[in-house]
Amino acid sequence: MSELRHDPISQRWVIIAPARASRPTDFGGTSSSRPRAPRCPFCPGNEDDTPPPVAVTGPEMQGESPHAPWLVRVVPNKYPAVGPEISARFSAGPRPALPAQGIHEVIVETPLHDRPLTMMSDPEVTAVAMAYRSRVADAASAPFARSVMLFKNHGADAGASLAHPHAQLISLPIVPELLATELRGTAAYHAANGVCPYCAAAAASPDLLVAENELFLAYCPWVSRVPYEVWLQPRRHDPDFAAMTEHEPAALGRLLRDVLIRIGSALQTPAYNYFLHTAPVHGQAHPTYHWHLEILPRLCRFAGFEWGSGFSMNHVPPELAAERLRAVST
Amino acid sequence: MSELRHDPISQRWVIIAPARASRPTDFGGTSSSRPRAPRCPFCPGNEDDTPPPVAVTGPEMQGESPHAPWLVRVVPNKYPAVGPEISARFSAGPRPALPAQGIHEVIVETPLHDRPLTMMSDPEVTAVAMAYRSRVADAASAPFARSVMLFKNHGADAGASLAHPHAQLISLPIVPELLATELRGTAAYHAANGVCPYCAAAAASPDLLVAENELFLAYCPWVSRVPYEVWLQPRRHDPDFAAMTEHEPAALGRLLRDVLIRIGSALQTPAYNYFLHTAPVHGQAHPTYHWHLEILPRLCRFAGFEWGSGFSMNHVPPELAAERLRAVST
Repeated sequence: MSELRHDPISQRWVIIAPARASRPTDFGGTSSSRPRAPRCPFCPGNEDDTPPPVAVTGPEMQGESPHAPWLVRVVPNKYPAVGPEISARFSAGPRPALPAQGIHEVIVETPLHDRPLTMMSDPEVTAVAMAYRSRVADAASAPFARSVMLFKNHGADAGASLAHPHAQLISLPIVPELLATELRGTAAYHAANGVCPYCAAAAASPDLLVAENELFLAYCPWVSRVPYEVWLQPRRHDPDFAAMTEHEPAALGRLLRDVLIRIGSALQTPAYNYFLHTAPVHGQAHPTYHWHLEILPRLCRFAGFEWGSGFSMNHVPPELAAERLRAVST
Repeated sequence: MSELRHDPISQRWVIIAPARASRPTDFGGTSSSRPRAPRCPFCPGNEDDTPPPVAVTGPEMQGESPHAPWLVRVVPNKYPAVGPEISARFSAGPRPALPAQGIHEVIVETPLHDRPLTMMSDPEVTAVAMAYRSRVADAASAPFARSVMLFKNHGADAGASLAHPHAQLISLPIVPELLATELRGTAAYHAANGVCPYCAAAAASPDLLVAENELFLAYCPWVSRVPYEVWLQPRRHDPDFAAMTEHEPAALGRLLRDVLIRIGSALQTPAYNYFLHTAPVHGQAHPTYHWHLEILPRLCRFAGFEWGSGFSMNHVPPELAAERLRAVST
């Protein structure tokens, strides 16, 4: 069983997850010592390679000619970083640790191995965004959950071990320090300025805008950590991703696809990560927070300076990145 | 000129450094769009490829048969992330930024292109550690400096752009949030327990010990972010790296070499980063802090979960990593 360890000096949390060492990979590179997957466990026909699904979107959303018996398929991660059972109690003292209680799921976004989000139709991206929403809502309903992370690793350079389009969800019994810092910062900003900083950033930054539609905005944050970092957020202020209203998933899916097409076109289809920042659950409410999705293309490697200082060096000013991404015709 | 940007929500600092985009590289991979270095700018004979040195260690330390007219050579970084001049004032308001005033140097550790620390003699590793100490002391003496980072990127997977053994030094007019958090955490721990947490960790952790000598200890921290993370620290409590006493640089150099040999042997010579954590300068004293050097082998890629949450997933428990590193015969 995995363990959450906390360092009171750096405020750092780490998941010590020995079971993750044995998972298979499609890729070489720094992960080459792991076993190569003999066949893709996420392709139709190989459903027995994964644990039974916890959710499936039916083929009816694929229209006339379904590719497979399912469109989106959610399965427990076979090599989970966290688990639902409690096998130990929190140990305080000189080595504080906590059982890593939570849920670790894989959201297989399409039956087609070579169909990334950028190639999907409107109904397909809608199905993906709806699956994101319902899985986050479901994970948040577990009584032990305090925070829910949804994220994607696309490409080996972004840490993906399998190429078939998929996202992952991890719920945790704690609030990660990075999210806790954002919650404090947002509340303080709101108290001082009377406005949500995410709403304010979106309103004041036409030079940082990348793309938009009726319900969502995409922009390069003023303090971008990496070249071409892009954030997506709903126009409507809401702390909670799972509270997306009826038409928001479709609009999110379309704008996410649009931004990924721009990044791919401007930058020769780089690897990327994205991840959701949404308010914690089962505790104090965080009405000033504004959920958003952060996309980080992996064009550079994090090096000693970034690891040592905790901050980043970015050689592309975000206002220039936004200009270049806006200029892509999609 | 580069700019330091601060996000009051996440407390993140970022250096926006457009000039860094044009630097050359020895390596392919994710950096392949940059120009490849036509010849190594750090090899003897190519001294004109770098700016004039700010410090040179003479060949007398090489013993009978010097390899080159110098043993360690320190030059200003040709593509600096920070600069000594002030070209603008701090801009507050909705987009807070600060000129990135500081020093960015390259410490060329040997005249020999293919001689990493692991292959160096005692006098050579001593010369490297003494250069580290004197450059950190010199950078700290600049009136605008608030913190000094010394770090190494070894191997392309660790973000190195050139293969010739070298470290880098960057001074900054701010204290990075990660270091500020450690200073607060250390002071709070000391107030509660009456002891420095670094001294306490070293004393209480025989199972985490990797190697030691008369003046230094090396151990895997209990909250290791990555597999085989190792920290080096002096037995003598001191917040300030530049205050190393007469015999400490030689002992540091020897233990650093020993640990890197163990990591290389146990893990097939991976890429790695290391970086120095030392107390800030020109401000409040931090008597409870304890300087240390953090080594992170680059066996895995940071992926979406780590970027999104700010914490790490580590599949090798540090107590197991320490056992394996201890078992290497050096």
